[in-house]
Amino acid sequence: MEQKQLFDLLKQMTVDEKVGQLLQLAAEFYSEKAEEKTGPMTDLGLSHEDINNAGTTLGISGAKEAIRVQKAYMEHNRLGIPTILMADIIHGFRTIFPIPLGLGSSWDLEAAKKVAEVSAKEAAVSGLHVTFSPMVDLVRDPRWGRVMESTGEDHFLNSRFAEAFVKGYQGEDLKNDFFRVAACVKHFAAYGAAIGGRDYNTVNMSERQLRDSYLPGYKAALDAGAKLVMTSFNTVDGIPATGNKWLFRDVLRKEFGFDGVVISDWGAIIELIPHGIAQDKKQAAELAIKAGVDIEMMTTCYTENLKELIEEKTIDEAILDEAVLRILTLKNDLGLFENPHRGADVALEKEVVLSKEHREIAKDVAKKSMVLLKNDSILPLSKQENIALIGPAADSHDVIGVWSWQGKKEEAVSLAEGVQQLGAEYLIGTETFDYFNPSEAAITEAIALAQKADTVVLALGEEEWMSGEASSRSDIRLPQAQLDLFKAVQAVNENVIVTLYNGRPLDLQGIDSAKAIVEAWFPGTEAGTALADILYGEYNPSGRLSMSFPETVGQVPVYYNYDNTGRPYKPGDEKYVSKYLDVSNFAKYPFGFGMSYSDITYKDLKLSTNEMTSDETITASITLENQSDITGQETVQLYIRDQVGEVVRPVKELKGFEKITIKAHEKRTVEFTITEDLLRYVHSDQSVTSDAGIFDIMIGANSRDVETATVKLVK
Amino acid sequence: MEQKQLFDLLKQMTVDEKVGQLLQLAAEFYSEKAEEKTGPMTDLGLSHEDINNAGTTLGISGAKEAIRVQKAYMEHNRLGIPTILMADIIHGFRTIFPIPLGLGSSWDLEAAKKVAEVSAKEAAVSGLHVTFSPMVDLVRDPRWGRVMESTGEDHFLNSRFAEAFVKGYQGEDLKNDFFRVAACVKHFAAYGAAIGGRDYNTVNMSERQLRDSYLPGYKAALDAGAKLVMTSFNTVDGIPATGNKWLFRDVLRKEFGFDGVVISDWGAIIELIPHGIAQDKKQAAELAIKAGVDIEMMTTCYTENLKELIEEKTIDEAILDEAVLRILTLKNDLGLFENPHRGADVALEKEVVLSKEHREIAKDVAKKSMVLLKNDSILPLSKQENIALIGPAADSHDVIGVWSWQGKKEEAVSLAEGVQQLGAEYLIGTETFDYFNPSEAAITEAIALAQKADTVVLALGEEEWMSGEASSRSDIRLPQAQLDLFKAVQAVNENVIVTLYNGRPLDLQGIDSAKAIVEAWFPGTEAGTALADILYGEYNPSGRLSMSFPETVGQVPVYYNYDNTGRPYKPGDEKYVSKYLDVSNFAKYPFGFGMSYSDITYKDLKLSTNEMTSDETITASITLENQSDITGQETVQLYIRDQVGEVVRPVKELKGFEKITIKAHEKRTVEFTITEDLLRYVHSDQSVTSDAGIFDIMIGANSRDVETATVKLVK
Repeated sequence: MEQKQLFDLLKQMTVDEKVGQLLQLAAEFYSEKAEEKTGPMTDLGLSHEDINNAGTTLGISGAKEAIRVQKAYMEHNRLGIPTILMADIIHGFRTIFPIPLGLGSSWDLEAAKKVAEVSAKEAAVSGLHVTFSPMVDLVRDPRWGRVMESTGEDHFLNSRFAEAFVKGYQGEDLKNDFFRVAACVKHFAAYGAAIGGRDYNTVNMSERQLRDSYLPGYKAALDAGAKLVMTSFNTVDGIPATGNKWLFRDVLRKEFGFDGVVISDWGAIIELIPHGIAQDKKQAAELAIKAGVDIEMMTTCYTENLKELIEEKTIDEAILDEAVLRILTLKNDLGLFENPHRGADVALEKEVVLSKEHREIAKDVAKKSMVLLKNDSILPLSKQENIALIGPAADSHDVIGVWSWQGKKEEAVSLAEGVQQLGAEYLIGTETFDYFNPSEAAITEAIALAQKADTVVLALGEEEWMSGEASSRSDIRLPQAQLDLFKAVQAVNENVIVTLYNGRPLDLQGIDSAKAIVEAWFPGTEAGTALADILYGEYNPSGRLSMSFPETVGQVPVYYNYDNTGRPYKPGDEKYVSKYLDVSNFAKYPFGFGMSYSDITYKDLKLSTNEMTSDETITASITLENQSDITGQETVQLYIRDQVGEVVRPVKELKGFEKITIKAHEKRTVEFTITEDLLRYVHSDQSVTSDAGIFDIMIGANSRDVETATVKLVK
Repeated sequence: MEQKQLFDLLKQMTVDEKVGQLLQLAAEFYSEKAEEKTGPMTDLGLSHEDINNAGTTLGISGAKEAIRVQKAYMEHNRLGIPTILMADIIHGFRTIFPIPLGLGSSWDLEAAKKVAEVSAKEAAVSGLHVTFSPMVDLVRDPRWGRVMESTGEDHFLNSRFAEAFVKGYQGEDLKNDFFRVAACVKHFAAYGAAIGGRDYNTVNMSERQLRDSYLPGYKAALDAGAKLVMTSFNTVDGIPATGNKWLFRDVLRKEFGFDGVVISDWGAIIELIPHGIAQDKKQAAELAIKAGVDIEMMTTCYTENLKELIEEKTIDEAILDEAVLRILTLKNDLGLFENPHRGADVALEKEVVLSKEHREIAKDVAKKSMVLLKNDSILPLSKQENIALIGPAADSHDVIGVWSWQGKKEEAVSLAEGVQQLGAEYLIGTETFDYFNPSEAAITEAIALAQKADTVVLALGEEEWMSGEASSRSDIRLPQAQLDLFKAVQAVNENVIVTLYNGRPLDLQGIDSAKAIVEAWFPGTEAGTALADILYGEYNPSGRLSMSFPETVGQVPVYYNYDNTGRPYKPGDEKYVSKYLDVSNFAKYPFGFGMSYSDITYKDLKLSTNEMTSDETITASITLENQSDITGQETVQLYIRDQVGEVVRPVKELKGFEKITIKAHEKRTVEFTITEDLLRYVHSDQSVTSDAGIFDIMIGANSRDVETATVKLVK
């Protein structure tokens, strides 16, 4: 359909039909069974006509159902406008990939793109058109449950992942490539900064901080072409994002030039009332539409009030038209006027969803996401070793993590199954070991097995529900029962390897004396096969943390790109420097950190010149040497620090990285090109420019261990 | 001296002499002994002339020494300009009063004023002219060590205390009343918001938040006439306060109309270098003087560079003149040109300092500052009871807290001594019980005593060094040895009363099953007598927390005046509301909370009308009834909530309080007058106005337990 036709269509629509386009309802409203439908309809006070008018849907899936709903919808729609089927496809559709925080640890943009492609394909053949992904909220507080959904604490890395996800979801030709879905970047803005890591809590920061650290991730997704933006639940400087005109009209629309669809998060418009900026649904509707929120998810502030607001002239009909046109444009961009069912295909669905190929990709990505945090020469295991596999996660299928809507735990591989598939022998018990309250029998059995074995693989972690939305924890240690188990096991067998499934950086006190620790996150459908490959050295670990692990929750927030303060702590300083009396300032495992089974050194950082102008580029190079007999992968990381800024600059900021493979005993030189744009930052007047002066150029294996040289920017 | 004479004086000064006025040096530079002086002089690269030119001094005290230094100074000074003797008199000079967080718990403004008066008098007769007090930084994070120095988490309460302190220090006629000192309000601005509660750490918040919550305390001190302002160590939106022109020139000088002296905190100008906004001392000097910092404390950026900066025309000499004139004006305001020694008086010093009268006042204020947190009908004790007094603080003199420069622990009264003075019998051991690593003998003895006694008073707490500057803790529980002791004691005697000396709200897990808990803070010189009076009912506890006690550090920050969020938690809500999985959202003991030995109820909240205009006032009244046989004191608290704001408003904000005495079985009605100015807040455009609409008027005994009525503001 041409743009002109969309305008014509808009002209034909009644105000009621227009308002309807702005409503999004969930699957139950489209059920064939009256009894499933009636309750929710009554709850929201909706008529059948309202449902027929509602412009988009949430959480409908399965090719057959999608086709049925679309058909019925279009039959009812006076103008034959199709609906859009949206859903949360966060880290895989049915084939589940690692949680985003795990994907972040891969530092592998091709892998992320592939994950998005596969997710899109499975979702698309199952009838979906839009996914509410990527989530690019910058996260610094591991108490927050939704850190599992982010790629981490760094906006540069988050931005690269955001681009990869958007490209993977949307492809090159969204309209005609039916294996793709439109991407909705979320949550605009700064949802990750909820005070106290408590979900939905207030956010407060300066505009400069918002622009410098929090907005770049969203911007990167938009620049990559994301079709939709979702509002965040939190306030942005006192005004809830969903009613924040400055944020959406001035920043998102005018400044960032975004002309796609803005959708509220679930219920976020009506929540302007408890937030305390709207006295009722009518005022909530007014604030949200004026802020530029096009679609209202699952509440009826718009449905009930927009017409009246227009009739009263509180809002202009043009503001409604604008929103409707954006929704119609999205429908057109998805080709739904011509192909209302897009990829929905019952036959293909069976073939594509959870295919062998997809499982292989899931395994590959899961391996890349796991991070070897510690290894006192105990890993990799050999198949000849006498291994005991114990702990709550040893044979658990609770490995896919939350936001795995269509994922099924029973389709996932447990660690025990993975080890078995690899053909290794292991001892395992028959008692189920509960994550929180293990039975005496389970504990006794576990210790007995540990006594019998040469080496113990102790599989610990969080249960799925402990991270994700509304799953903030004030205590980020493992449950006490698991710490007790570790202690009991270590007392009888000092060769303890801990594997962890979890959704956030943990406080590892109580298990950090293990001989090895593998952070596996929630790895997805192929959890066990991937983790077994890591443990037995079939895959040389390559993951690098994208979020710092604190020493303790009392030290939170801990992040690598902090400001120096006027009294920075240096080891040896006793008092009157910025530190705690009882714990270090630094992360237990910092951003960018991860080990492998190789032994790779970094040497000879060189700059092509020590002075540059804004037009020049310089090359920074470093030489890696693999001093081991094992081929390894390194994620070489470039950090930059502006020594003197107009405002205080972080002690380091990631500005580039390269994943390379380096063979046994090979030497390789890695080069980065540094241009003036890498030296820019947000000044106090919000301008993004660079300052003349000295910059530290740092390259290394992680944010802590770097070599440093300096360059002068001459202006 | 007339203003004109000050101008004339300024005209006679050389640039070197002017620059000298801006330098503040500590006592050692004025020592009579060459060897004490030489080291520091060499360290700072100062000449004797620099010292003679330095305009103010830090930390000199004792009437004799003060007179000597002033005499020598004026002899050396070509123009006969006197110096100013400044020091940190934070909660008493030699007679030590409760730490400010304790004073905050008194909610007693007259008491605070009295504390300041006595402190000023002792300091003044000892030769001092200026105190670096009050500290009014709003504090929400108990990990920060300097919360001990603040009156708490609420800007309304902090503001009232700020006024009381300033009036108490400065009196009505500073120039002629030699028993007074000038007050320096600190730390401008927002030092209390250091990230992670880590001292000196970065601060970030929006300008609106800064104005709404953090600036009012300083403003109140200025409006009360504080003569000086000290810069804070932290950044304010990326620019360290000490180099922050917007903060000092635009806000403090222009907007707040402050024309007094701005002094850097210790070394804060040179710290612009590690902060990363100055490349060297010269640039640091330029930024600080341009920002409007008049005095440089203990570093020599100004001394070494201002002259050159003027010669180069990087700065105008007028900016130097302005700073010098402010310092000369302060000297004149203190009457130093006419009376260079002011109150310094060797004879009076002996009479006044630590006088019996001052100790009585210290005892009175200490009693008012203690907060009864819990009492399962075990307190007050009777003198007939068989009491064991155990724990590290039982007979400790570590009771005065930090920032007690001239205070002496040996002059303070321990709890055991206090109980003895009261004439009560008690069992006590002979072993010293270490706060962290008690000996086996001490533990054994403690338990044996607990077994023998009817009731145990277990005196626990922090040692002095655990709070205050540079004393941040990631773990805010009592030291493990004390938790262990509590457990062991409770196992043999269930009647355990815990008393606490400490400098911050603690996580009380591990001792919260005590039958009573008395929060005594660091009470000062008369610690033991005051605490004994509380325990034995000689004084009916009246303290109310001015800072919330969290359940656990993982829940920090917890403060009463939070925003509601869009998904506020209500008891019973299961998921998808703002909460933690493992701990409540709320404080263990909230702001405003404290018990007494009386039983006082609040009833019948009444408003004189339910609608008001901006010109009208309404009266809110509530009736208290003392249902017990004991006269008690109540701090009746008025909170207001703006139901719908242009920006989100806190769930409640303190807007008034009244301390009343209510006799046994008496009924009393307390009234508050509500005017439109109480309904104002900082809007997103930084304007301070009120909105028409509904407001909740809440009155109660603390921030949690309130009665509510509503009033409509009509505009």
